[in-house]
Amino acid sequence: MLEVSEAVDLIERHVGNFGTENIPLVAAAGRILRQAVDAERALPPYDRVMMDGIAVRHGEGRVFQVLGAQRAGMPAQRLDRDDACLEVTTGAVLPEGADAVIPVERLIRNGDTVTLEDGYVMEAGQFIHRRGIDCQQGARLLDPGLRLNAPALAVLAGNGCANVEVAKVPRIGIVSTGDELVAVDAPVREWEIRASNDHAIAGALRARGFDDVSFDRIVDDLDATVATLGALLDRCDVLVLSGGVSMGTFDYVPRAMEALGVTRIFHKIAQRPGKPMWFGVGPRGQRVFALPGNPVSALTCCVRYVVPALLSAQGLLAKERFTVRLDAEVALIPTLARFVPVRVHHDQAGQALAHPLPMPTSGDFNHLATTHGFVELPKGERAPPGTHAVFHGW
Amino acid sequence: MLEVSEAVDLIERHVGNFGTENIPLVAAAGRILRQAVDAERALPPYDRVMMDGIAVRHGEGRVFQVLGAQRAGMPAQRLDRDDACLEVTTGAVLPEGADAVIPVERLIRNGDTVTLEDGYVMEAGQFIHRRGIDCQQGARLLDPGLRLNAPALAVLAGNGCANVEVAKVPRIGIVSTGDELVAVDAPVREWEIRASNDHAIAGALRARGFDDVSFDRIVDDLDATVATLGALLDRCDVLVLSGGVSMGTFDYVPRAMEALGVTRIFHKIAQRPGKPMWFGVGPRGQRVFALPGNPVSALTCCVRYVVPALLSAQGLLAKERFTVRLDAEVALIPTLARFVPVRVHHDQAGQALAHPLPMPTSGDFNHLATTHGFVELPKGERAPPGTHAVFHGW
Repeated sequence: MLEVSEAVDLIERHVGNFGTENIPLVAAAGRILRQAVDAERALPPYDRVMMDGIAVRHGEGRVFQVLGAQRAGMPAQRLDRDDACLEVTTGAVLPEGADAVIPVERLIRNGDTVTLEDGYVMEAGQFIHRRGIDCQQGARLLDPGLRLNAPALAVLAGNGCANVEVAKVPRIGIVSTGDELVAVDAPVREWEIRASNDHAIAGALRARGFDDVSFDRIVDDLDATVATLGALLDRCDVLVLSGGVSMGTFDYVPRAMEALGVTRIFHKIAQRPGKPMWFGVGPRGQRVFALPGNPVSALTCCVRYVVPALLSAQGLLAKERFTVRLDAEVALIPTLARFVPVRVHHDQAGQALAHPLPMPTSGDFNHLATTHGFVELPKGERAPPGTHAVFHGW
Repeated sequence: MLEVSEAVDLIERHVGNFGTENIPLVAAAGRILRQAVDAERALPPYDRVMMDGIAVRHGEGRVFQVLGAQRAGMPAQRLDRDDACLEVTTGAVLPEGADAVIPVERLIRNGDTVTLEDGYVMEAGQFIHRRGIDCQQGARLLDPGLRLNAPALAVLAGNGCANVEVAKVPRIGIVSTGDELVAVDAPVREWEIRASNDHAIAGALRARGFDDVSFDRIVDDLDATVATLGALLDRCDVLVLSGGVSMGTFDYVPRAMEALGVTRIFHKIAQRPGKPMWFGVGPRGQRVFALPGNPVSALTCCVRYVVPALLSAQGLLAKERFTVRLDAEVALIPTLARFVPVRVHHDQAGQALAHPLPMPTSGDFNHLATTHGFVELPKGERAPPGTHAVFHGW
């Protein structure tokens, strides 16, 4: 049976990529950048006024005749006199010839003249952002592999990128298997269970921007499984199945995969929950993740394996996971890695603390909604309070 | 001038709410739940088989005749004999009369009989999840105020909520002001600046699910400002402006607001950046946030004030902010609170560390894209390394 790290390595080796597309900036929030962005111009692109007030030639003068206004958005005007000024607004070009800005709060206005406040002393260059102090034209601003958050979108806008090259979002088919499953809006009989894995998997994927998902359900029958999966392999880049991969006579997924030419990369990982996980690659390079059917197992495997693989394929550089400290003991398993649901909070000193909430059974979704994610713990006997562990958020 | 906490309190007092709507579960990922959810049935709803294998009446027997199969999704069958068994699959109902499950790995099959592995000892109740051990029918599972993540979506699906009551998403008008601004796809002259605040603000809002945003731009003219803002007040729940609120002769926003019957709640906060921020409430209860025009100021104020206010109005309970520890000194300001951009990472012990990156100028968006958010620091002289501060992510 594979170790967790071996399974991750095998998936990463087959992760491929979904290509890129050029989209309008207004549609790019949250997408993964796949181009570099360099400064279109120096920033500021001109000597820029920092305050509303007046622009002057610095010196001993205290009274200035107002010759006009240099507002933001106007080409630079010229100021040649020491006893005169131009009104200026924040963001305006500094008038040619001027070399100081005096804020409006320090001025007394009287008709066409302004007088400096008593005791106010001006300095050359004050309240001026000089051209290029923030960055020079051509400087590298954004590298590929960044998720486009608010500041990155502003950089794109500010540097003339009306369109942007981003990672394509794969078409993902989510498939639930099991004769016992009924839909959320159907009557449910005592021996049946409402399907919930598909909604959980879609939720975890949508939270990362993977919103091109479809839902299918297949019963425990080889022919039906082959037919449905074959159609999905034709139109999807990725399949995420839950159920049908354990040891039983009626688990048709691995056999259907073989019939459809999907190469098995591995089956089973030394972990709890999620031991029966299966991963394969289809004839066109489709990635097929077949997760166990237990709800906790399915979501844990989705977050631990499927999500990082899809983000790698999109070229995202930053990892979502981080280290936390357990605030209570967790019993470990000598032969299996263990994933334990936790609540995480940061204390007043900035320490990330994880409170473990082992689920009564791996079918217990109901209590999972009170947790933020899970920690990954190695094989062993026990993890005492204070143990450091990697946290993965739902 | 208001303190940061006073401004937050005033906004919270006028935050209102956007009402609720009932939407299909498949569209609910990331939305804010506004109903309670109780367990539709006990979980598990029946005594549930945990492993693929056989169900038996526990005892001394070691060879069992296979009478049939109890698969997941079948109503409970009956087992009356001690020398016989039913094949069972994971998730199936335990057959009536059976009280133990033996995993397939421990069996030797021979035609219609199975024999237990040498030395295998069964126990009553083994590999059975008893009805109701996870939760009882009617137990409270989800409370209002939760953002619908993957496990919460599964709880809704598993408990028959095909439709769900969630907070409405407000219509938000994003408005940039300033004659110097040109659009991302237009030619830019030396004295002009590409508009970027609108994209940054939209990015921060969209990242929290506020995706019903429109973009407008107004020039520095009172009549034009009144006309555009009037039309937006008619069709929006929230306006987020940037620019036009500082001290200058040409800052028309506060005057336009007065003309449109928008009540000013406050103007100016003792903070850097973002001192000129303005907040008001329109005749229909529209919330109007007028942020300073400098890019760093605009985004900082959006994340510090607009985002938490909108999330409060939606009823979200969990706060996004958390405490971090500074890894370098920051110069403070005796008279103003300070917001400083930072990169955050968790070290190997789970300590959240913030590396401050004060921007060269408050117009410098370009370097902001390398940060994760900002920390909030009080008035003072200096914050030495090790200082704890509240972090707000972009």
